[in-house]
Amino acid sequence: MKVAFTSDNIAGASEAVVEAIVSAAASGDAMPYGNDDSTALVTRMFAELFECEVDVFLVSTGTAANVLSLSAMTPQWGSVFCHEESHLLNDESSAPEFFTGGARLVGLGGCDAKINPQQLRKLVNQKVGDVHSCQPAALSLSQVTEVGSVYSLEEIKELTEIAKSAGIPTHMDGARFANAIVSLGCTPAEMTWKAGVDIVSFGATKNGAMAAEAIVVFNRTLTESLDIRRKRGGHLHSKMRLLSSQMIAYLSNDLWRKNASHANDMMTFLQDGLRQITSIKINTPAQANMLFCTLPEGMEQYLLEEGFAFYGGRWETGVVRFVTSFRTPKEGIEAFIESAQRFHDLYCSPARN
Amino acid sequence: MKVAFTSDNIAGASEAVVEAIVSAAASGDAMPYGNDDSTALVTRMFAELFECEVDVFLVSTGTAANVLSLSAMTPQWGSVFCHEESHLLNDESSAPEFFTGGARLVGLGGCDAKINPQQLRKLVNQKVGDVHSCQPAALSLSQVTEVGSVYSLEEIKELTEIAKSAGIPTHMDGARFANAIVSLGCTPAEMTWKAGVDIVSFGATKNGAMAAEAIVVFNRTLTESLDIRRKRGGHLHSKMRLLSSQMIAYLSNDLWRKNASHANDMMTFLQDGLRQITSIKINTPAQANMLFCTLPEGMEQYLLEEGFAFYGGRWETGVVRFVTSFRTPKEGIEAFIESAQRFHDLYCSPARN
Amino acid sequence: MKVAFTSDNIAGASEAVVEAIVSAAASGDAMPYGNDDSTALVTRMFAELFECEVDVFLVSTGTAANVLSLSAMTPQWGSVFCHEESHLLNDESSAPEFFTGGARLVGLGGCDAKINPQQLRKLVNQKVGDVHSCQPAALSLSQVTEVGSVYSLEEIKELTEIAKSAGIPTHMDGARFANAIVSLGCTPAEMTWKAGVDIVSFGATKNGAMAAEAIVVFNRTLTESLDIRRKRGGHLHSKMRLLSSQMIAYLSNDLWRKNASHANDMMTFLQDGLRQITSIKINTPAQANMLFCTLPEGMEQYLLEEGFAFYGGRWETGVVRFVTSFRTPKEGIEAFIESAQRFHDLYCSPARN
Amino acid sequence: MKVAFTSDNIAGASEAVVEAIVSAAASGDAMPYGNDDSTALVTRMFAELFECEVDVFLVSTGTAANVLSLSAMTPQWGSVFCHEESHLLNDESSAPEFFTGGARLVGLGGCDAKINPQQLRKLVNQKVGDVHSCQPAALSLSQVTEVGSVYSLEEIKELTEIAKSAGIPTHMDGARFANAIVSLGCTPAEMTWKAGVDIVSFGATKNGAMAAEAIVVFNRTLTESLDIRRKRGGHLHSKMRLLSSQMIAYLSNDLWRKNASHANDMMTFLQDGLRQITSIKINTPAQANMLFCTLPEGMEQYLLEEGFAFYGGRWETGVVRFVTSFRTPKEGIEAFIESAQRFHDLYCSPARN
Repeated sequence: MKVAFTSDNIAGASEAVVEAIVSAAASGDAMPYGNDDSTALVTRMFAELFECEVDVFLVSTGTAANVLSLSAMTPQWGSVFCHEESHLLNDESSAPEFFTGGARLVGLGGCDAKINPQQLRKLVNQKVGDVHSCQPAALSLSQVTEVGSVYSLEEIKELTEIAKSAGIPTHMDGARFANAIVSLGCTPAEMTWKAGVDIVSFGATKNGAMAAEAIVVFNRTLTESLDIRRKRGGHLHSKMRLLSSQMIAYLSNDLWRKNASHANDMMTFLQDGLRQITSIKINTPAQANMLFCTLPEGMEQYLLEEGFAFYGGRWETGVVRFVTSFRTPKEGIEAFIESAQRFHDLYCSPARN
Repeated sequence: MKVAFTSDNIAGASEAVVEAIVSAAASGDAMPYGNDDSTALVTRMFAELFECEVDVFLVSTGTAANVLSLSAMTPQWGSVFCHEESHLLNDESSAPEFFTGGARLVGLGGCDAKINPQQLRKLVNQKVGDVHSCQPAALSLSQVTEVGSVYSLEEIKELTEIAKSAGIPTHMDGARFANAIVSLGCTPAEMTWKAGVDIVSFGATKNGAMAAEAIVVFNRTLTESLDIRRKRGGHLHSKMRLLSSQMIAYLSNDLWRKNASHANDMMTFLQDGLRQITSIKINTPAQANMLFCTLPEGMEQYLLEEGFAFYGGRWETGVVRFVTSFRTPKEGIEAFIESAQRFHDLYCSPARN
Repeated sequence: MKVAFTSDNIAGASEAVVEAIVSAAASGDAMPYGNDDSTALVTRMFAELFECEVDVFLVSTGTAANVLSLSAMTPQWGSVFCHEESHLLNDESSAPEFFTGGARLVGLGGCDAKINPQQLRKLVNQKVGDVHSCQPAALSLSQVTEVGSVYSLEEIKELTEIAKSAGIPTHMDGARFANAIVSLGCTPAEMTWKAGVDIVSFGATKNGAMAAEAIVVFNRTLTESLDIRRKRGGHLHSKMRLLSSQMIAYLSNDLWRKNASHANDMMTFLQDGLRQITSIKINTPAQANMLFCTLPEGMEQYLLEEGFAFYGGRWETGVVRFVTSFRTPKEGIEAFIESAQRFHDLYCSPARN
Repeated sequence: MKVAFTSDNIAGASEAVVEAIVSAAASGDAMPYGNDDSTALVTRMFAELFECEVDVFLVSTGTAANVLSLSAMTPQWGSVFCHEESHLLNDESSAPEFFTGGARLVGLGGCDAKINPQQLRKLVNQKVGDVHSCQPAALSLSQVTEVGSVYSLEEIKELTEIAKSAGIPTHMDGARFANAIVSLGCTPAEMTWKAGVDIVSFGATKNGAMAAEAIVVFNRTLTESLDIRRKRGGHLHSKMRLLSSQMIAYLSNDLWRKNASHANDMMTFLQDGLRQITSIKINTPAQANMLFCTLPEGMEQYLLEEGFAFYGGRWETGVVRFVTSFRTPKEGIEAFIESAQRFHDLYCSPARN
């Protein structure tokens, strides 16, 4: 069985997370619907992590975290600005429209899947107060982006300030929050509320949990409706400790950071290796745990036949995506690079032409 | 720590379920979003359990199972007939309206929280085709009902036939499906499709799982949209094996039946005990694992102060609810009955008057 | 052609209204979407009529006026309290759910289609803050009610005070607003904001206009979203003068009051006549222009065959509804009473038994 | 008072339309909600006009016609393909999302506001069956387009065939349907169902009516829900004859065609005149009654100060829009051209440079 770079959602969970579930399941009676001690503890841990008071809503999927967050930020006739390549716009069906009651996602351009500030500035001030048009309502950033790049703190601030100047709040889709933090070497506070972010989808599922995401609210005027929206969306777990136990383990002993560090390190290792193979083109330099490359003709097929797994065929010809996770093995990457090199030597080296 | 009869959602999970989660989490890579082997196995196990081909959609909450089911059964202008005391109508916020896009729940009367067939017959044929009125669209039965009674197979058939005669499908809210099966001593097939049920919310969370519910579809014309509705509702887990592993364990070795048998037996034991205390009135004889009683003045407070836990104060004066679960201990019930008896002897016996 | 009591929406329009349309259509260019002079004039006329500042939104149907009003008053998870016999609940399809994004209508009981204050008091304070339940959000009164009765000012105040004490606003469905004013002999201000009403659907269509209804907002915190909600509902007319011209004519020279007076007078005349016929039972004494009676067996068929028109067969056996309008002719009523009397004499008089 | 080219919705109504309203208003009782003779007549007239059986739903605004049509064509998770400059996408608030229950408008590129067939072909086959993505559901064409161009019959066919090949139906936004027919010199049948269109928003308001639009359905499988959707949207008029009388007059004696011919002729006259002024750039040659030009610096302000009216300042610098209507006077255009010429001679002629 060879290494799979398909996604970071194909891995199971960290041992500490599993142990926490076991212990939660065995721990006797607990009040349902989040009125238990472990859920209260999660909120305190997030407050400490983010160095401020926060409201926290645990859910079991990233889509739920994103669209519930947005639903608290926009009226039904609002425009939500996001990147045209974002997961929100392309991979969550019409969940955003469903939960917001019909608000509109507006996809903006920008290099490396980062929103272009000039475009944003133009749009947040367009047709404000015109009943014939959707009204600027919210900004949503993906950090890590959909192509594996990472916004710098300055880039985040620039965008949130444009939003704030127009009176609209900012959401961060942090499905790979930990990978971004490790990449930037900053604190969670610096990457969020200190940079103008009002609410974050804090992902754990892709980085060591089985199913645990937290909506973390800094701008607590957004909190009011989230409690009831979560229930109304069918996302209020009765045995909440299933979610809270995972999150406690994830936040304890720096597990979230260690897991993300491993994933990012493995990506660096992979990228460095692929860079040596001149027939492979790095499309966007990986800053976290995801990489888009263009492979020479035939290499994709060759590697898949060798037993490696990754996504291709969804983008332009030859473009493939590699994702590393908290448990991608280094040896697996070495074997992968070797195979790629072998194909290159056989079919792409100058001597052959 | 004394026994709690608050709800069957306060318990953790059965050991076998926990072991299954552990083993799923440790089992290496698996394709995401239900494209893994364990999810396929769940479908096969349900087909065997129900003795027919079925489509299965796993979700993590009972509200999601109910409202997604309904959303596939009714147009946005439909009437969904349910009992006026049902969980669907009273305890799921406006999730039914949200997921159905604005269909209307119509609460019907009927003894012991069972829908009155005469009322149903009248309503399913009312104002059909009249654009000024909501259109009869679906029937939803709760089995076990909200007061702890259980529809007989004949009662189910009578209602589904009324529905069918008007061309509308039937949903069963089976949050306590296993408890009902044990109570009736029938097969899952007999209680569902053989009795005219088109789709069932098959609950496991209250009876040994941590968070695992299955939408089981018999009338597969209802399946088409459910796949996308689940995603759109944010209910498609990426690491589906968290749900499928629980369900496999729950369905294996008759765990579901054993757990429900214990819960029901404990309720019988509790009810028999309370029946001996003449100052306590049994409101609806428990047929599964839930009981509504009226306690004499002062007894509720006394028992709570003794450390027992249960819900009161939500219904008419003195009315309380007791729920037993797969792990309610017999000794706990004995202690509870003793306490109730003690209160009775002290304050309610004829000698005192 | 004999007189028809089917509804007050079967009549055409008052001459003054038609002349106003003609003159508006011929008046040259006008700014679209309500930015014209006549629409501004309508707002000033309503301010004068109601003796206070108001915001006004013209629409072309009563359903639009009602459901747009409610949509500004309730969150998507709110409960809207109305009478169980109200038009809102029974005759507007699922428009309320559609426009409110899934809020729930809760039908209350009460004699003569007037909401029972005790029931309301109980419900507005129930389960507040409980995420599992719809949240009390708005009260909607019909004045005239669905059975032709009229709330007294004291009755309105009692209900709005109960609502206010729970922090929820009150809507009045005034499809027959003018008929109620004439019946009570009070001012529009007294029947609305002075009695605690926050927003009213002011109907003109049934009383002399072709299609013109105004949402009149007293509690202007409700105004903010209505402008955009009207557009979003497809209810913002480009040539608004079609609506505003009708409303100007309707409000000018007391036309609204004269028309309603005629309709009410004709109902009094009809009711007085029917009261003489002992085989006819008056179900709810008419206070405005609508009457529900129970006819003796055979009379309904007889009158229909004579060429009169009215609704029957929708309620209990023998129950029929009569509605008079701004142009119901007195002679028509005389002929109708005569016919009813004739049937009575032939088939119902004591001599026959 | 000088001529206004602001929009074709600033004019009043044709005399024949006004007379029809007068006569309808005075015509005695009529059954409500479209169950009257004149509404039936409208359907027969449309069947004759389009040379086939059709279902017809009258509404009072173009937004209602468009979004109700779409709501019958797409599931809540569908993608509706339209041009990125279309009225549907830019000028109807979030009404499309509201009525479709959250479907997504996808704006395509293409010259002269006509959809690029290659882009459409790519998108209709993208991610079909993928629950993570919105599903291709409908195509919506604007004829006349938003910039005043007109699709040829071949262009319409090419697009509808691409749609059909992917199993999705086509809607035509015919707010200026008559202007397009006159421009193409074809029959209504040729421009719609013979060219693959399934449903059309047939506009009359901009071309001689006060408020009357018809949803005309050729593909009658789309009809089923429209009846109830119209009521649910608050768009079912009780006194339908207000709408039907306008439409009857509009369709009688070729009024629709005469009015559009006048508007188009006036635009030709205007365009020919402006073409003589070399400092004015025609952006898209007008094919119907709308024209986008770029004026030389200062000319816009000059013309506005002269008392002419038109829209500018909404697009790139100097870009203005002229719209002619069924009652734009030729003399007004002559005066306008003269003024423009005068400005040109004073400030833009080569001699000045």
